[in-house]
Amino acid sequence: MYIYDFEIRVEYVDTDKMGIMHNSRYFLFFERGRTETMRSLGIGYKKIENKGVTMPVVEQFARYLLPAFYDDILVVRTKITEMPMAKIRFDYEIIRNENGTENLLCVGYNTLAFVDTATNKPLRLPQWIKDSLKPYMD
Amino acid sequence: MYIYDFEIRVEYVDTDKMGIMHNSRYFLFFERGRTETMRSLGIGYKKIENKGVTMPVVEQFARYLLPAFYDDILVVRTKITEMPMAKIRFDYEIIRNENGTENLLCVGYNTLAFVDTATNKPLRLPQWIKDSLKPYMD
Amino acid sequence: MYIYDFEIRVEYVDTDKMGIMHNSRYFLFFERGRTETMRSLGIGYKKIENKGVTMPVVEQFARYLLPAFYDDILVVRTKITEMPMAKIRFDYEIIRNENGTENLLCVGYNTLAFVDTATNKPLRLPQWIKDSLKPYMD
Amino acid sequence: MYIYDFEIRVEYVDTDKMGIMHNSRYFLFFERGRTETMRSLGIGYKKIENKGVTMPVVEQFARYLLPAFYDDILVVRTKITEMPMAKIRFDYEIIRNENGTENLLCVGYNTLAFVDTATNKPLRLPQWIKDSLKPYMD
Repeated sequence: MYIYDFEIRVEYVDTDKMGIMHNSRYFLFFERGRTETMRSLGIGYKKIENKGVTMPVVEQFARYLLPAFYDDILVVRTKITEMPMAKIRFDYEIIRNENGTENLLCVGYNTLAFVDTATNKPLRLPQWIKDSLKPYMD
Repeated sequence: MYIYDFEIRVEYVDTDKMGIMHNSRYFLFFERGRTETMRSLGIGYKKIENKGVTMPVVEQFARYLLPAFYDDILVVRTKITEMPMAKIRFDYEIIRNENGTENLLCVGYNTLAFVDTATNKPLRLPQWIKDSLKPYMD
Repeated sequence: MYIYDFEIRVEYVDTDKMGIMHNSRYFLFFERGRTETMRSLGIGYKKIENKGVTMPVVEQFARYLLPAFYDDILVVRTKITEMPMAKIRFDYEIIRNENGTENLLCVGYNTLAFVDTATNKPLRLPQWIKDSLKPYMD
Repeated sequence: MYIYDFEIRVEYVDTDKMGIMHNSRYFLFFERGRTETMRSLGIGYKKIENKGVTMPVVEQFARYLLPAFYDDILVVRTKITEMPMAKIRFDYEIIRNENGTENLLCVGYNTLAFVDTATNKPLRLPQWIKDSLKPYMD
């Protein structure tokens, strides 16, 4: 398993008139967590696109447990738990640390496909991405 | 079952550098579909909030089948298939009509709770919402 | 002068914790007003891009006079007051009709350039856009 | 004069089908720059709201000089050049550092008012905000 934590602060524009972070914003936090997780593995998404591979999101899910508020610093914990085949799955936890306790605000996941940018055809997991993940997978 | 169709056009800001509508935007289309569906039932969300009830999203899901492009007119088809209890579930289809054919771009759902705005405590389904839905449910 | 009115409803995601529409959203209303204004002139932006022309925003401004609230139906009034040369200027008024009165919530403008998509070089106003505007300009 | 630099990375969702950061996003970068600038002065916006003061944006402007691209790290340089009276003005520069050179992508400003949250009436600059700024103003 590979786990990566990345901190993001809740901005004013992230909130709605309920006074909490809008439900759609969590998917942007997933995107940022995933981006930084891949960068930390040496497979930044810009590099992937430069190699002619696009990774569209195939499906995604979020369950909301506790609200997030303006100016909160949240941890996006991203996990890759198994070696991808045709698709790669990322699991997410959105966490707020309070007095030494991790409060879980949201859990979710998404799966992404690998597509050849030129032909728009699906690809299997590129070998160089596999190599980056191998040290962390059984 | 209650079904309601609402059309939304894909704006420039909805697209990303992949040239297609960004995955997070579909959840905003769900929100707009749900808003207009509830309005069509006579239970507009503004009215609900004015009655001291808030409806936070508890969980949501989207599966992406085909990309949406700039300037597309999409149909958000919202369905309520069963009488809600503690929570209400909405199912969504995002559809693009092409030459008389309905192409399904995305399917999804979300569930929302009923909360007393003053006490922040969960509520059962308010009777007046139940009354609005009754004609459509078995 | 050419004037075009287009109605947009304020969505939940447009609001922030102040309970009003977020200041950045007005620029999206400008974009939608401009898009529909150009479509009404027969020079839809998709058609423009298909002809190899891109129109980046060069500068823009907004002054906020009154807040907009959730579920408000707002009129985006877009004006083109003079024949463009190297750039085209759009003026905007965001209006809420209340009991027969037009309340002005926001005024603004932006200017856009014409760029050759292939060469990324600036263009003068294409003749076919000029032809569309001519009937409305002195 | 008070100057504060804050770095923000361009996310995928910030881009549009032109392949560059969407014009509306710069105003969110202004917001984040302003937020961190005020925090650095000891007058974080959350603290201001907790003291019963709201700061709505009165007007804002942006001029776009060069495009920003996905994954760029941009500097938001925020300046307060004069002691505010009824309103406070922030000037912004969005900068991309390339090989030791600062490339200016965008300049802009906004002005914000001080409003009593309870009465919704305008306020003059609160003394404690004035005290925070005094060391930097002539």
